Amino acid sequence: MTILIKNISLKNRIVDILIEGNIFKEIGDNINIKADKIIDGTNKAIIQPFYNMHTHSAMTLLRGYGDDMRLFQWLSEYIWPQEAKLTSEDIYNGTRLAILEMIRSGTVFFLDMYWYHKEIIRAAQDMKIRANIGISFIEERGKKEVEESIEFINQFEQSSELINISVAPHAIYTVGKDLYQELHKISKAKNLKFHTHLSETLKEVKDCKKANNGLTPVEFLNSIGVLDNNTIAAHCVHLTEKDAEILGSKGVTIVHNPCSNMKLASGFFNVPLIHKYDCRVCLGTDGVSSNNNLSMMEEMKFAALLAKVAYNDTSLLSANEIFAWATKYGAEAMNINSGKIKEGKLADCLIVDLNNERLIPNHNLISNWVYSADSRCIETVICNGDILMENRVIPNEDEIISKAKHFIR
Amino acid sequence: MTILIKNISLKNRIVDILIEGNIFKEIGDNINIKADKIIDGTNKAIIQPFYNMHTHSAMTLLRGYGDDMRLFQWLSEYIWPQEAKLTSEDIYNGTRLAILEMIRSGTVFFLDMYWYHKEIIRAAQDMKIRANIGISFIEERGKKEVEESIEFINQFEQSSELINISVAPHAIYTVGKDLYQELHKISKAKNLKFHTHLSETLKEVKDCKKANNGLTPVEFLNSIGVLDNNTIAAHCVHLTEKDAEILGSKGVTIVHNPCSNMKLASGFFNVPLIHKYDCRVCLGTDGVSSNNNLSMMEEMKFAALLAKVAYNDTSLLSANEIFAWATKYGAEAMNINSGKIKEGKLADCLIVDLNNERLIPNHNLISNWVYSADSRCIETVICNGDILMENRVIPNEDEIISKAKHFIR
Repeated sequence: MTILIKNISLKNRIVDILIEGNIFKEIGDNINIKADKIIDGTNKAIIQPFYNMHTHSAMTLLRGYGDDMRLFQWLSEYIWPQEAKLTSEDIYNGTRLAILEMIRSGTVFFLDMYWYHKEIIRAAQDMKIRANIGISFIEERGKKEVEESIEFINQFEQSSELINISVAPHAIYTVGKDLYQELHKISKAKNLKFHTHLSETLKEVKDCKKANNGLTPVEFLNSIGVLDNNTIAAHCVHLTEKDAEILGSKGVTIVHNPCSNMKLASGFFNVPLIHKYDCRVCLGTDGVSSNNNLSMMEEMKFAALLAKVAYNDTSLLSANEIFAWATKYGAEAMNINSGKIKEGKLADCLIVDLNNERLIPNHNLISNWVYSADSRCIETVICNGDILMENRVIPNEDEIISKAKHFIR
Repeated sequence: MTILIKNISLKNRIVDILIEGNIFKEIGDNINIKADKIIDGTNKAIIQPFYNMHTHSAMTLLRGYGDDMRLFQWLSEYIWPQEAKLTSEDIYNGTRLAILEMIRSGTVFFLDMYWYHKEIIRAAQDMKIRANIGISFIEERGKKEVEESIEFINQFEQSSELINISVAPHAIYTVGKDLYQELHKISKAKNLKFHTHLSETLKEVKDCKKANNGLTPVEFLNSIGVLDNNTIAAHCVHLTEKDAEILGSKGVTIVHNPCSNMKLASGFFNVPLIHKYDCRVCLGTDGVSSNNNLSMMEEMKFAALLAKVAYNDTSLLSANEIFAWATKYGAEAMNINSGKIKEGKLADCLIVDLNNERLIPNHNLISNWVYSADSRCIETVICNGDILMENRVIPNEDEIISKAKHFIR
């Protein structure tokens, strides 16, 4: 399959772009090749899509189910009882709803962490999106589940370049030292990413210090040898200078989830500190229950504006920097050869309507994209050379909506 | 003109709604009347629209023109030099772009404060939106302009129920005591709202205390007698207990502008304090230069999430409360008999697509609306019984876009 995009704006230059198979084959001034599909790029821009680096996609089914409550009441009275009732079919339908929402808002990859991983993989495969499915571990769910999940990881063979798995111990308060170390070994042996929650709340930090001779969660995981450049740590809201130094020097990928950290009142992500220690940072939406959507567009604006007000610095976390966190740094962290519109890169891109009022005037597209746009600006989404949404149409949308709509308990 | 909306969801009940002229005439189970227009409400909800209580609409033309800079550099090198070059035609085109954006994101009223008020009034009239145009005063723009503006106010006769003006001294650092008092008198005599910026930045507070024997900006304006239930005070970020008590007891309407306060690093709006003193609060987007859009939908989410993280309380500023700030409290503050979908109220409403994935599942529409929706969810916008957008189409959209698009200096 070849796609030729004619006369499209790429970084303020009008170009033609040829996609051959799953790569950007040629970007030039006037490409005249017979392609299977031709897209007219007049009054449109091409831009790299989002890589959502931390979510729990099937939780879309719990959108708006209990909000504005104290954390423990919300979890114990609302979220956990509902989660306990979810069937594998619910997970499949919820994940497809999540993917639909992600495609509409320009996301072509998500790093997931939830249960019923087989259903999540099936949903991602059916919708042709890139995904890495974290195989989750919480010890109190029982030995049997832990063993089955380890077995699943050991048996897993990647069958598509789009879908992979990662090893995902939930957090230090749900997974003990021994299992963390065992899972880290497995991730090394299978060459899989190691994905965990880390330093999300003050309570986590306090409890950890109490239980581990004053070690912070970062220090604790470092002391047991599981932090390295394969590790993806979600949240990292409460970091000491020493924590940031460890995360920076070990090359850990930090995932910032501003909406969730704000909605759950977890705290302010320390942007000056992660700058100081040159930490690798990406962006994620977290699950819908604490957001309540999967829009990386909103997430960029929240991240940038929160940093400015929290640290009293209007120049902190510029549009260009947060755009990089949301796009190419995610692809880089996952070793996906994409995140840039460049010859030889995997063909992941968005086609954006430059006549949408949110992008007018076009003094600076990235500024408009980060601070002004919403999902209405996106016309077409291409992932790995496949068109996932064309002129705002996603195949099977009605069926996905209709299945998910009836999840009301 | 009569509009009959059939089978639409209103607060989880399916109803028919009859609009006659500019009011909701009847809301019932089965209305069978011959109407000029019939709208099928199946799988849709009707919801009250937004009242944007503080903006500088023509600044849409400066969207993305300079971001992420220290405030003074941004103003002096970017915003002011560009503003100085704006022509009255620019203001007309910029305001129409702003109104287009507001309609698309569900806003039917805006309270403005800018220059070239005649052009702003013309744009609002042409687009049939409700607007109150603040006639702005900054003393250093010269005596002549001040006199002309006072003359304009004195001559003004309201010619349409949709458009009114207000008296808008810019701020205590641009308008002196005498002019404040003179303008306040004029606003009383003409029965117009009195709209000003107040306590936006720490610098404003410090400078005011230094110049006025330790009085805060709120105390200062109170001491000169210009705060009452006719006053609309934008920002109010830096409030003492005494300030909040004054604003509450005087019945001043406070306008919260979370995106702008965050982007300009102005500070955290003190929600617990305004709750304690039972202050009247509404929501506004501020101008595009410090936002960078006019979406009240985003503004609601920013307000609610910022309050939670800033005051470490997940239950603070619930979806229902922020929705009221963004809708009916604005209408109330402006004495517009709308902001509720109720028989006898002015017919302002939105028709929303319940099959949009951001609103699925529909456990709680207001939660989905505040925390998840974006402008793609809105199908139809009705203001004062007139359809401003129908099935996502706004008359003259292409012409408005084309005029505004070419404002690149």
